[in-house]
Amino acid sequence: MSEPSVRVSAAVLVIGNEILSGRTQDTNLAHLANRLNEYGIQVLEARVVPDVERAIVDAVNELRARFDYVFTTGGIGPTHDDITADCIAKAFGVPLVVNEEIAEILRRRPSPPEVMEARMRMARVPQGGGLIRNPFGPHGFFIGNVYVLAGVPQVMQAMIASLEGQLRRGETIRSRAVTAHLSEGQIARRLGDIQARFPHIDLGSYPFYRSDRYGTTLVMRGSVEADLDAMLAQVRQMIVDLGGTPVDETAG
Amino acid sequence: MSEPSVRVSAAVLVIGNEILSGRTQDTNLAHLANRLNEYGIQVLEARVVPDVERAIVDAVNELRARFDYVFTTGGIGPTHDDITADCIAKAFGVPLVVNEEIAEILRRRPSPPEVMEARMRMARVPQGGGLIRNPFGPHGFFIGNVYVLAGVPQVMQAMIASLEGQLRRGETIRSRAVTAHLSEGQIARRLGDIQARFPHIDLGSYPFYRSDRYGTTLVMRGSVEADLDAMLAQVRQMIVDLGGTPVDETAG
Repeated sequence: MSEPSVRVSAAVLVIGNEILSGRTQDTNLAHLANRLNEYGIQVLEARVVPDVERAIVDAVNELRARFDYVFTTGGIGPTHDDITADCIAKAFGVPLVVNEEIAEILRRRPSPPEVMEARMRMARVPQGGGLIRNPFGPHGFFIGNVYVLAGVPQVMQAMIASLEGQLRRGETIRSRAVTAHLSEGQIARRLGDIQARFPHIDLGSYPFYRSDRYGTTLVMRGSVEADLDAMLAQVRQMIVDLGGTPVDETAG
Repeated sequence: MSEPSVRVSAAVLVIGNEILSGRTQDTNLAHLANRLNEYGIQVLEARVVPDVERAIVDAVNELRARFDYVFTTGGIGPTHDDITADCIAKAFGVPLVVNEEIAEILRRRPSPPEVMEARMRMARVPQGGGLIRNPFGPHGFFIGNVYVLAGVPQVMQAMIASLEGQLRRGETIRSRAVTAHLSEGQIARRLGDIQARFPHIDLGSYPFYRSDRYGTTLVMRGSVEADLDAMLAQVRQMIVDLGGTPVDETAG
């Protein structure tokens, strides 16, 4: 089955003071980027904004105009600092309405009235929005091209998994990677020549320093397998010519 | 010594395809956020953009207008995909010029002409910029309120460490954190009441699921220690009243 060669783009919007304070290490962006690429969607920008209405509304409106999809993480729980649903509704200029399907699920777990009232905050979805179903608990929602996911990694991962096959599919980016114990300075000119011969493949050079050795990982990313293999052969040959030993890395 | 009560803000701009592809897990944002807070600077937004000139130039110009400081990471090596210096120069509308101090350091390591030429790319700094010295190798630079750091974590960390005492200092945010094995729904209403009594402290609620137990970590962030302690006491009391056991967490 041949794949569409069109590019479908996405931005990730991470919402949460805890990421910007450095208290919590975000891992949702990397997970989403990998998963969305499997779905044929490329993440081309990411932002992290605090739990502040103006910051969220502005970012959502700017990103949804520029990218095919926007995926947000965080701020959809029942506490006072969970303002994502309110902000998405404001960004789209629609009211929040109680979604009866979510409300029904929430009512199944008996709770004192005060607790139920708080949990019912999670049933509010912007008018016109649909559900992102999650077998393990809270639901997310989407409206237009904006998909609103949880911040807790396990929950977010269940939500994005549930979207498989439900999003517009573009080309999938494949990659090759090879490492050499050579410096970037040593390889720079010939690497630039190889890049110039394959303008449709991104050739990235990532230096590292570990256990007293330095080296560079060269990553090729593109949608045509044959071109990737041809470029990889040239990169490997370059490493050999410069006195190094190419070590294949897991692509990804 | 009393601290200034003014807020000094920063944005972090992570430059690199490898972060957006999900291949590399960024850790620079969290490190910068923690370190800058020690310097009295608060990170209020972060962005990740690809190695694409237009994306970098636009982000730099937008962020430097909105925040006191911008810290970029990535793209300052000698290979073809290292375009950060060029983009910063373009954002400021100035040419790139060879910085003689960096050039001198680069010349100290003898290299074949081809390699030296590539390494000399790293001596180019936007006209009017200054150096961010790094005892371990490559230097960064700054121009206006934009500070350009390496992407490799060890190198980036050395660069930001070298800036201690050289940036405008605002208030430092302190925090308290306590965990309870209660659900967010259980605590939501009373937590909102506590937040309302301390409008100058951010009270964040972060649910987690680990080893079959769920719980919530409550994080208080603000600049006045006495207020933080007063709020912490109320949060702890709330947990006890709801039948839970407060467990103090490392602040951060």
